[in-house]
Amino acid sequence: MKLTILGFNSAIPTINSHPSSQLLDIQENLFLIDCGEGTQVQLRRAKAKFSKINHIFISHLHGDHVFGLIGLISTFLLLGRENILNIYGPKGIKMFIENQLSLTESYQIFKLNFVELSSKDSQLIYEDNKLTVHTIPLDHRVYTNGFIFKEKAKPKRLNIESINQYPQIEVCDYHNLKLGKDWVSEDGKTTISNEKLTYEAKHSYSYAYCSDTSYKPDIIDLIKDVDVLYHESTFLNDLEDLARKTKHSTALEAAKIAKEAKVKHLILGHFSNRYSDFSVFQEEAETIFPSTLLPRELETFDFEKM
Amino acid sequence: MKLTILGFNSAIPTINSHPSSQLLDIQENLFLIDCGEGTQVQLRRAKAKFSKINHIFISHLHGDHVFGLIGLISTFLLLGRENILNIYGPKGIKMFIENQLSLTESYQIFKLNFVELSSKDSQLIYEDNKLTVHTIPLDHRVYTNGFIFKEKAKPKRLNIESINQYPQIEVCDYHNLKLGKDWVSEDGKTTISNEKLTYEAKHSYSYAYCSDTSYKPDIIDLIKDVDVLYHESTFLNDLEDLARKTKHSTALEAAKIAKEAKVKHLILGHFSNRYSDFSVFQEEAETIFPSTLLPRELETFDFEKM
Repeated sequence: MKLTILGFNSAIPTINSHPSSQLLDIQENLFLIDCGEGTQVQLRRAKAKFSKINHIFISHLHGDHVFGLIGLISTFLLLGRENILNIYGPKGIKMFIENQLSLTESYQIFKLNFVELSSKDSQLIYEDNKLTVHTIPLDHRVYTNGFIFKEKAKPKRLNIESINQYPQIEVCDYHNLKLGKDWVSEDGKTTISNEKLTYEAKHSYSYAYCSDTSYKPDIIDLIKDVDVLYHESTFLNDLEDLARKTKHSTALEAAKIAKEAKVKHLILGHFSNRYSDFSVFQEEAETIFPSTLLPRELETFDFEKM
Repeated sequence: MKLTILGFNSAIPTINSHPSSQLLDIQENLFLIDCGEGTQVQLRRAKAKFSKINHIFISHLHGDHVFGLIGLISTFLLLGRENILNIYGPKGIKMFIENQLSLTESYQIFKLNFVELSSKDSQLIYEDNKLTVHTIPLDHRVYTNGFIFKEKAKPKRLNIESINQYPQIEVCDYHNLKLGKDWVSEDGKTTISNEKLTYEAKHSYSYAYCSDTSYKPDIIDLIKDVDVLYHESTFLNDLEDLARKTKHSTALEAAKIAKEAKVKHLILGHFSNRYSDFSVFQEEAETIFPSTLLPRELETFDFEKM
């Protein structure tokens, strides 16, 4: 699992900073999370293959999280895309995009599949044979969800050297070994324990994206033990009142969530544009949660190497 | 009059090229023409004062000319703008923007004044004491207008040295002298001709923006004698058929229009992304119209110095 930060500022695109957007690469499938203005150009800078993006997750309908979506869809059209594009976002997102496509007389050559969200509970919104995605209900000025991406348990890895010592084990048995089953002879008389024949499965990674939200401790159960948590921290603790009022979080609060949820790493972001040096966010969070990281645009976090 | 090219590509924003947008500075009032995605960042790069932009002209509702508008308006909101913003564009543009503002729950603190266009004839759509703006009906796949900006006649400049030789001329007479009137004594017996007392007025500049359109010779009368014409040339002449089909123009056709309209300078643009070296457009147009220029992003054409 690899996470590329395309943009993490709050509110206004500038020459050197882009609004929220992230690209999650899970076993070479690309999942786009939020899509502020300019995201399609950031995707080009990140050398992302547009054709591998089939699922886009929008946390909420504020401009800095969604104004780049129509341009990206429009570019897909111009590039002759044929695959279905799935868009997950708050109720209203279908009308938001379809109105624009209709008023710009854009001819749709691929299918747009909208999954509109309105539940206040966490929901499973995507699943394939490798992965699940659930919503994380957040608390912001408008209806907002975070998203948690979890790889499913991976197959155990065959210990071929050991297997070769048992000529009675055939290739057609490998599937069951990978699933963790012991080898049993046809007559049921001989059993070889799975541990002898396999190595442990590779770790199944998980990632939780939480932006924008006020401090919301009831998400802790949902994001428990994830490898990486991105949690917004628009303000520092000295502006806690402003965070309350605007329904954002402070770096300290993001760190509290990370600590309680026992995540491995915390990435902060969505910093208010009143700050130019972001190291203060890291410093504040590290007082509670040491493994706090700052994002940089176009930086890729490779979860295996963290 | 100064024209800054913010973007001139066709269709898709890339790392090094932006879709259509131009900023026209007329005596320090800024007029924005078209607004593709990323325009607000290009305005920052051009160091344009956002507060001086009070009028935005949109040629047509294709994404590469309008997808940056909602982001710019949203940024105006976040920056606390209070002045009215006037937006001129095809019928539908009001709904296009208001739908997005409503679905993103944007709170409007300044007034948006939409002037929706649907006439197939040229119309006066803006006038102040220095300037008029008329539409130039174009022929594209959707309803499209170009725009012609004309400075009004400027006052004559006083020849103070000469005036001082006539003590009977008072300061309160200057206004009429600037308007070109002869000086006449109160009793009507003495006349001093205006030519003796003034220099010629400075040139009143004019600019015509024509994008997107098929070759449309009936615009020639409207843009006659303008100082600068921007005319799209999406293709070269060898792709004339494709130009017909997509309702775009070739460089040769843009040059024909420039020549017939006796404009002083032609700027080409909106080149198809099949071309990487744009000098071929200039070469083709120069065979008919020598004063042909190519744009560069963030380049400013100062009409006085051309």
